Amino acid sequence: KEAVVMSVSGLTEFVGTAIGDTVGLVIANVDRGLHEKMGLDKKYRSIGIIGARTGAGPQLMAVDEAVKATNSEVVTVELPRDTKGGAGHGSLIIVAAEDVSDARRAVEVALKELDRTFGDVYGCDAGHLEFQYTARASYCLNKAFGAPLGKAFGIIVGAPAAIGVLMADTALKTASVDVVTYGSPTHGNSYTNEVVLTITGDSGAVRQAIISAREVGLKVMRAMGQNPVSSTKPYI
Amino acid sequence: KEAVVMSVSGLTEFVGTAIGDTVGLVIANVDRGLHEKMGLDKKYRSIGIIGARTGAGPQLMAVDEAVKATNSEVVTVELPRDTKGGAGHGSLIIVAAEDVSDARRAVEVALKELDRTFGDVYGCDAGHLEFQYTARASYCLNKAFGAPLGKAFGIIVGAPAAIGVLMADTALKTASVDVVTYGSPTHGNSYTNEVVLTITGDSGAVRQAIISAREVGLKVMRAMGQNPVSSTKPYI
Amino acid sequence: KEAVVMSVSGLTEFVGTAIGDTVGLVIANVDRGLHEKMGLDKKYRSIGIIGARTGAGPQLMAVDEAVKATNSEVVTVELPRDTKGGAGHGSLIIVAAEDVSDARRAVEVALKELDRTFGDVYGCDAGHLEFQYTARASYCLNKAFGAPLGKAFGIIVGAPAAIGVLMADTALKTASVDVVTYGSPTHGNSYTNEVVLTITGDSGAVRQAIISAREVGLKVMRAMGQNPVSSTKPYI
Repeated sequence: KEAVVMSVSGLTEFVGTAIGDTVGLVIANVDRGLHEKMGLDKKYRSIGIIGARTGAGPQLMAVDEAVKATNSEVVTVELPRDTKGGAGHGSLIIVAAEDVSDARRAVEVALKELDRTFGDVYGCDAGHLEFQYTARASYCLNKAFGAPLGKAFGIIVGAPAAIGVLMADTALKTASVDVVTYGSPTHGNSYTNEVVLTITGDSGAVRQAIISAREVGLKVMRAMGQNPVSSTKPYI
Repeated sequence: KEAVVMSVSGLTEFVGTAIGDTVGLVIANVDRGLHEKMGLDKKYRSIGIIGARTGAGPQLMAVDEAVKATNSEVVTVELPRDTKGGAGHGSLIIVAAEDVSDARRAVEVALKELDRTFGDVYGCDAGHLEFQYTARASYCLNKAFGAPLGKAFGIIVGAPAAIGVLMADTALKTASVDVVTYGSPTHGNSYTNEVVLTITGDSGAVRQAIISAREVGLKVMRAMGQNPVSSTKPYI
Repeated sequence: KEAVVMSVSGLTEFVGTAIGDTVGLVIANVDRGLHEKMGLDKKYRSIGIIGARTGAGPQLMAVDEAVKATNSEVVTVELPRDTKGGAGHGSLIIVAAEDVSDARRAVEVALKELDRTFGDVYGCDAGHLEFQYTARASYCLNKAFGAPLGKAFGIIVGAPAAIGVLMADTALKTASVDVVTYGSPTHGNSYTNEVVLTITGDSGAVRQAIISAREVGLKVMRAMGQNPVSSTKPYI
């Protein structure tokens, strides 16, 4: 479908689209004036752009895999207040590379990862829950949260934010993990109605903390009369 | 319903749910690491959490009553940009107590107040109007707005913000009241499309100022072709 | 319709309503306490208020024409995060005048311009594109963006923000124009999911840059499977 679309549009910059109104684009030679306004390092001529209306965590995880797999670097991460009337963030992530083929490849990898990384995003009318896990954090998660490189890392998100507070408490009581960040609506988030806990530590402990938080979050949502469902297929 | 839900879920932390996708939760012993991240006073082990997708004023008024009626303290108030695609705020309010039964009681009282405090929230497709009044402000309104303790206090909200400007002008011309805060989208609000005026003074004057503002706000909404209706039942 | 509405409501402050849930209001003598809270210059007694749920660019362009045509001044521009669940801004623009008839006239002119200035706002489920052009920027665009007075000026907006990056690059490569501002979700925008480029220069170059950006933006939207359509009728 992507290839067809591209031949129709004749637009070499379009890489593809994915869940969450995610769009992947590439610019081979960024205009010099724009380059400066964006604060890019001079050594990079080419950029890949991953943007979405819905989702920050899924795209951050996806780009984290992309930079592991390609010769590219995450240069900026910005998280708008979005999700199309939902309670969370959208995303604008820019990766840079010396060569356009590397930038394009990074965007392709990221787009392909999204089906997986949306697996533990559970939506319902009252809000959403989101969980992410990686055995080995790389440069995108480091850029976005200060995740220690090469270590297990997890993200726990609850919306409305009240649920996130409870899930954070549950996660930290369940297993011996370290808090990397604790974000709330006006501290660390873009005024989203979320609490976002990020954790690191032993991979088994991080997973267990996430799983316990997920169990509690889903119970609260159901107690509110909601039926939270996975956006694709749970992976944790 | 709350009791049934709790026995089904086996989740002692769930207190209940209410209008505006409000959820009430309690944590008996906050995890020490989380305690620190949240900036809580060490003397409090237990917290109550009131969070909502829709509404800041109604929840702030409800918690204000709750802290009057219980041995608890408001520790943080955060107002996300929410209302599920509407023009206003959601809320995350945390109360703390030395004993979990006090924290739970505070959440219960707050949830019960919400039907009343949503009474002068008037929604329509183009936006919303909100009015709150208390004869005696307590610690939650003091925390959120700097309301003078024990004095009459009112909140006037118009969305789109333009209507709030006109209602603020009307309120201040109607009666001799003092402005506590004047919030606009990028000054004091979380980028909501609201103007929020809070006032204090003689209880009769505060009420009269609110009633005049409400009359003007409803007229403007109707002139826009809208039909603003109370979320529950007007109380002012 | 406006006149009828006014006689029905008996509300002299209501001027009219327009696309985007825009409302136009006027206050002949701003309350002295409010005057101070709003930070208005003492010489102005009267204000006109233009506010909207959807749209910042269209209202800014419309008010720019209004201040050219009337004896009024733009005193504040605030851009909430709004568009009713969409990816962009709403607006609150206040103009002041020594005489209420000038304030009212400014609001009337602005409301009438909106049909035109919404012409290059292209909405679809995944986001929106917006383009604005004037041969001669005036005080509203100067206030909002620092646009050079009397010079050609253009606005290019893409949402999700990723599309805006690509359109900005295209615009700057197409014609020799100067960047006035480059706004992204957390730098210059109110956490909207937009990239907003504003440009100045020779009028032909500004127009050509906008037209090229529009072509690319529409192609990307269509490649995403969307069908972006003008809100009214394109004017650029």
